[in-house]
Amino acid sequence: MPALNHKFQLAARPDGLPKRTDWNYVEEPVREPGDGELLIKIIYISLDPAMRGWMNAGKSYVEPVGIGEVMRALALGRVVNSRHPKFAPGDYVYGPLGVQECALSNGAGLTKVDSALAPLPLYLSTLGMPGMTAYFGILDVGQIEAGDMVVISGAAGAVGAVAGQIAKIKGCRVIGIAGGAAKCQYIKELGFDAAIDYKSEDVGKALATLCPKGLDVYFDNVGGDILDAALANLARGARIAICGAISQYNNTTPIKGPSNYLSLLINRATMRGFIVFDFAARYSEAARDMAAWIASGQLKSREHIVQGLEKFPEALLMLYSGENFGKLILKVADAA
Amino acid sequence: MPALNHKFQLAARPDGLPKRTDWNYVEEPVREPGDGELLIKIIYISLDPAMRGWMNAGKSYVEPVGIGEVMRALALGRVVNSRHPKFAPGDYVYGPLGVQECALSNGAGLTKVDSALAPLPLYLSTLGMPGMTAYFGILDVGQIEAGDMVVISGAAGAVGAVAGQIAKIKGCRVIGIAGGAAKCQYIKELGFDAAIDYKSEDVGKALATLCPKGLDVYFDNVGGDILDAALANLARGARIAICGAISQYNNTTPIKGPSNYLSLLINRATMRGFIVFDFAARYSEAARDMAAWIASGQLKSREHIVQGLEKFPEALLMLYSGENFGKLILKVADAA
Repeated sequence: MPALNHKFQLAARPDGLPKRTDWNYVEEPVREPGDGELLIKIIYISLDPAMRGWMNAGKSYVEPVGIGEVMRALALGRVVNSRHPKFAPGDYVYGPLGVQECALSNGAGLTKVDSALAPLPLYLSTLGMPGMTAYFGILDVGQIEAGDMVVISGAAGAVGAVAGQIAKIKGCRVIGIAGGAAKCQYIKELGFDAAIDYKSEDVGKALATLCPKGLDVYFDNVGGDILDAALANLARGARIAICGAISQYNNTTPIKGPSNYLSLLINRATMRGFIVFDFAARYSEAARDMAAWIASGQLKSREHIVQGLEKFPEALLMLYSGENFGKLILKVADAA
Repeated sequence: MPALNHKFQLAARPDGLPKRTDWNYVEEPVREPGDGELLIKIIYISLDPAMRGWMNAGKSYVEPVGIGEVMRALALGRVVNSRHPKFAPGDYVYGPLGVQECALSNGAGLTKVDSALAPLPLYLSTLGMPGMTAYFGILDVGQIEAGDMVVISGAAGAVGAVAGQIAKIKGCRVIGIAGGAAKCQYIKELGFDAAIDYKSEDVGKALATLCPKGLDVYFDNVGGDILDAALANLARGARIAICGAISQYNNTTPIKGPSNYLSLLINRATMRGFIVFDFAARYSEAARDMAAWIASGQLKSREHIVQGLEKFPEALLMLYSGENFGKLILKVADAA
């Protein structure tokens, strides 16, 4: 059992992009688990765009992280000590364990994962929240049908890449929007029909060229100007799934609302927001489909792993600059 | 048969609010109807917010009015001469007859109306397009259910007043947003549970007070800051019906997109645009319901009638200043 824990506690609510001083890096002794508790040594911490929102004051779809609390994060680790009847040392578990090396838990929100079935990082990407978000967002919110013209922003990201591959599996034509030639090349290797590089192309013009009849489904991870470009290119009856708006999370000015929203009226289109938690009762259904598609080679994933807990603040920023390439994960210990 | 016709032709595409010089007022001789044609003497011309959009270049949900063409408008008149088998002199007809005194028609888009069943102006308001828009917008797009908290903007307008009364008939709690004490008083007389005067109140704060659990359905006629205030007060699973955005139609700057649109994500809400034409196959169903509600006194309407064709440019502007009180109609001739 480790003697010391290191963790990042929220110290201040950021204004714009978070900086290192928005957290305190704290060392503390590790306490023995009490009755009904277990101690987990964390291996992988998931870094997700939504973490920026959790740092703001005011309730969103979850309570904000309190000042002085450990920074909230989904993570995967190994049980090292347990006085909980359902968990034994050696079990791999996944849950909201926080940005730290060790976590004491009463078992709430923990799921056991099988390291023999899939590599551990996959449980934080395609078989975890990003994968579930992609699955329900594209199928249930986007309501894709074979033959649909589907456009995905953040297409090389953990959610977007999976959403696009599912749309291909379901017989859609899929265009991905990503930043830079390497990411565009990558999504084409994943089977996307076309890629638009928002860093070097006019997204609106590219969409008008690539889908002259308009897009049937737009899966939005980014918001801002790219959402407006998609709105300007809707087919009649289009569905827009609002999954996130990473371009707007660090704004110090008000969020840019979609100026072209009246395209919803002209095209009788629907824009719907969703939160993956609402589909929790169906995660196992999604996981079964995803595991089968992974096994058959139809669904590929890519992880971007950064080493070392102390790298957390800089690593998180990679999400907002688009510097990561694949699901961003912080590795804080070895698996065995 | 009248010898001369007077009409407003589109002369220029407006920048911002239309001005009189954006039309030419033209006098021309009236031609006899040819084979299969009929001549209509127009009595009432409907003035609608959408007319501003028809003056812009570029296709929206309909083609723009061409420069030199008579200004498009729905109107109601009496047949004075007919060589069309389905129409006889004395018939009252309703259709896209334009801003003029007389219209020659081949019958396309014309509907006969019965002056014995309802006063003629009602065929341009509750029994016409505004009423149909309200009916399908609140029932089919808003998907209201008894007990829902429903908020309507432009609530004293031709569409909003009907949408709110239908929501009351269906057992909802209804809050209307309107401009000025008189309009707020009026919608309360119509049975709205509460009214917010956007000219003297903070709409967001008033909504937060009046619907502390959030609103289930928002029917938007105005866009802009009021749409943002509604977005800031959604209940989980809320539906927003985008019917129009009168606050934005005369912008010389880009449309103000809804800055609070991520509330759709947080609240798993849906924003859907619609066009009444898509429900044309069900107009008779709506008219039957509306006529019954009018007969039973559950559905009331108010018309604001301006006299004289030459008043058209000034009268149209009343819609955008909110000066009209009830369905705005231009009367250009006597009925009999």
